[in-house]
Amino acid sequence: MKLASLRQGRDGALIVVSRDGTRYAHAASIAGTMQAALDEWGSCEARLRELAAAVEAGTTQTHALDPRQLASPLPRAYEWVDGSAYINHIVLVRKARNAEPPATLRTDPLVYQGGSSVLLSPTDPIPLADLAWGCDFESEIAVVLGDTPQGTTKEEAHRFVRLVLLVNDVTLRNLIPDELAKGFGFFQSKPASAFSPFAVTPDELGDAWKDGRVHLPLVTRLNGAIAGDPDAGPEMHFSFFDLVAHITKTRSYGAGTILGSGTVSNEDPARGVSCLAERRTRETLESGKPITPFLTFGDRVQIEMRSASGESIFGTIDQTVVKR
Amino acid sequence: MKLASLRQGRDGALIVVSRDGTRYAHAASIAGTMQAALDEWGSCEARLRELAAAVEAGTTQTHALDPRQLASPLPRAYEWVDGSAYINHIVLVRKARNAEPPATLRTDPLVYQGGSSVLLSPTDPIPLADLAWGCDFESEIAVVLGDTPQGTTKEEAHRFVRLVLLVNDVTLRNLIPDELAKGFGFFQSKPASAFSPFAVTPDELGDAWKDGRVHLPLVTRLNGAIAGDPDAGPEMHFSFFDLVAHITKTRSYGAGTILGSGTVSNEDPARGVSCLAERRTRETLESGKPITPFLTFGDRVQIEMRSASGESIFGTIDQTVVKR
Repeated sequence: MKLASLRQGRDGALIVVSRDGTRYAHAASIAGTMQAALDEWGSCEARLRELAAAVEAGTTQTHALDPRQLASPLPRAYEWVDGSAYINHIVLVRKARNAEPPATLRTDPLVYQGGSSVLLSPTDPIPLADLAWGCDFESEIAVVLGDTPQGTTKEEAHRFVRLVLLVNDVTLRNLIPDELAKGFGFFQSKPASAFSPFAVTPDELGDAWKDGRVHLPLVTRLNGAIAGDPDAGPEMHFSFFDLVAHITKTRSYGAGTILGSGTVSNEDPARGVSCLAERRTRETLESGKPITPFLTFGDRVQIEMRSASGESIFGTIDQTVVKR
Repeated sequence: MKLASLRQGRDGALIVVSRDGTRYAHAASIAGTMQAALDEWGSCEARLRELAAAVEAGTTQTHALDPRQLASPLPRAYEWVDGSAYINHIVLVRKARNAEPPATLRTDPLVYQGGSSVLLSPTDPIPLADLAWGCDFESEIAVVLGDTPQGTTKEEAHRFVRLVLLVNDVTLRNLIPDELAKGFGFFQSKPASAFSPFAVTPDELGDAWKDGRVHLPLVTRLNGAIAGDPDAGPEMHFSFFDLVAHITKTRSYGAGTILGSGTVSNEDPARGVSCLAERRTRETLESGKPITPFLTFGDRVQIEMRSASGESIFGTIDQTVVKR
């Protein structure tokens, strides 16, 4: 089933969306907000699925969906944890800043904690105060967790994955070196992220959801041209299940925690990129310097993922950079 | 005014507490939860202050308060951002791990993003899975912000500080080096933090709230003995107003964001410590090796702050380390 949040108040209004993404039914009688549904998933899930079936069957009242009506599925979240599970991305962006990959690259996942009190809607502009910050997109997959206890194993992790969605993890590349030099993480270099219109249950992905990975291409367009369409599956070195086991080593997580994959990246250059930093690194390796500039005002970034039969699973993150 | 949350559901039940901390009145008719009050602070504040006045005057029904009834003022929060504003702490803990303080120590604040979907109650045990992780307390002050826009200046920051409270920012010292080596921040080395029973409006601190600092000693007891009572005021190099300006450089924050001071620390060794890492570093400097062990099962940590007239302002964080 596909869920989404209409823009309304601080937490949105929960709706159930048709599989083709064109129509929706209000879910207020089941749960007022996405967070409320996640808080009481055990009692809400079956009723939401019934409503989703009625939407497909045409046996409940539905309304035409305009994506601009939508907030992020969780307009604010209690936790946003982002991994960096695609080795190729780590290797390339570290080359870009002349940093070595960590020695534990393939054995110990990288994750950082991001801000989550303000999450951008899928069609919100990317507000940028200073072009010199080097604004970049990062196209990612994420999962929304239920209550997930400390010490969850990789084998148990699937039980806590409630929803899957897409993220644009906006990054200010030129602020990263000074932030990381202080040793406390990315802080100022990670402004608000935007999320896809729809958050879907894993079964909605069919066979493409396998071993805690989404085996489909993630397509990013920059000003209409394809920037990349890497397969999000095979090269995700640490699966979402690995990441859950990693983050629960020393603490537990509440329902509604969002866990990201990191920038989707393939070794094959023909699959393009999910962020400009990778393209700039490839350009530097080929010609000695980066050619592609970072994002500028008016640039448009679109991120989506289509099923094998061509349907847009999560709707489209569609953002334009604006002067703040 | 003093606010608190009774343990109830995921978000607690908002109460107004008497100045002496012994009695409370339910605030459900004004706002069901602390988060709800913060979300609608403009319309709730005056009514909560009226209720607080009635509690003092004895003109409303009150109940005896048992601190064990209390959850963290925010049992879960949309954001937990922790600074490290006491230079002496930074210098000492970096010495402990043979790391240099950052070059921008006195000009650029250190802040990290912490997890916030699970926050410990003031009397919750500290669950520890492995003694080898080197469990430590960190006694801190924190403020709760209202909606705080990107680009807030130091001069404007006072308008967004809603509440002040205490924190035990539990830290797993022996996990820090490997986490920081990866460059993504403290992640696994920062399990759930605990917060004081009461969150108070800044006016409740009287003259002790000045220039975005709390000018009172913060007292930490370990197994009943005073570990430290450093003054939280003069040596807070970056005030909360500086920290607000710093964190809003590239993004905005939603109501209920908690912003911490970092471990309170004074240069004068006679004022003791607010974490064991500092004591161990002082021991190493004096005798070549640390003597005090990190926390073990059964150790009890108490953190409180008293006004000049001797009243406990925030109640006491009172936690015991237990085997998870």
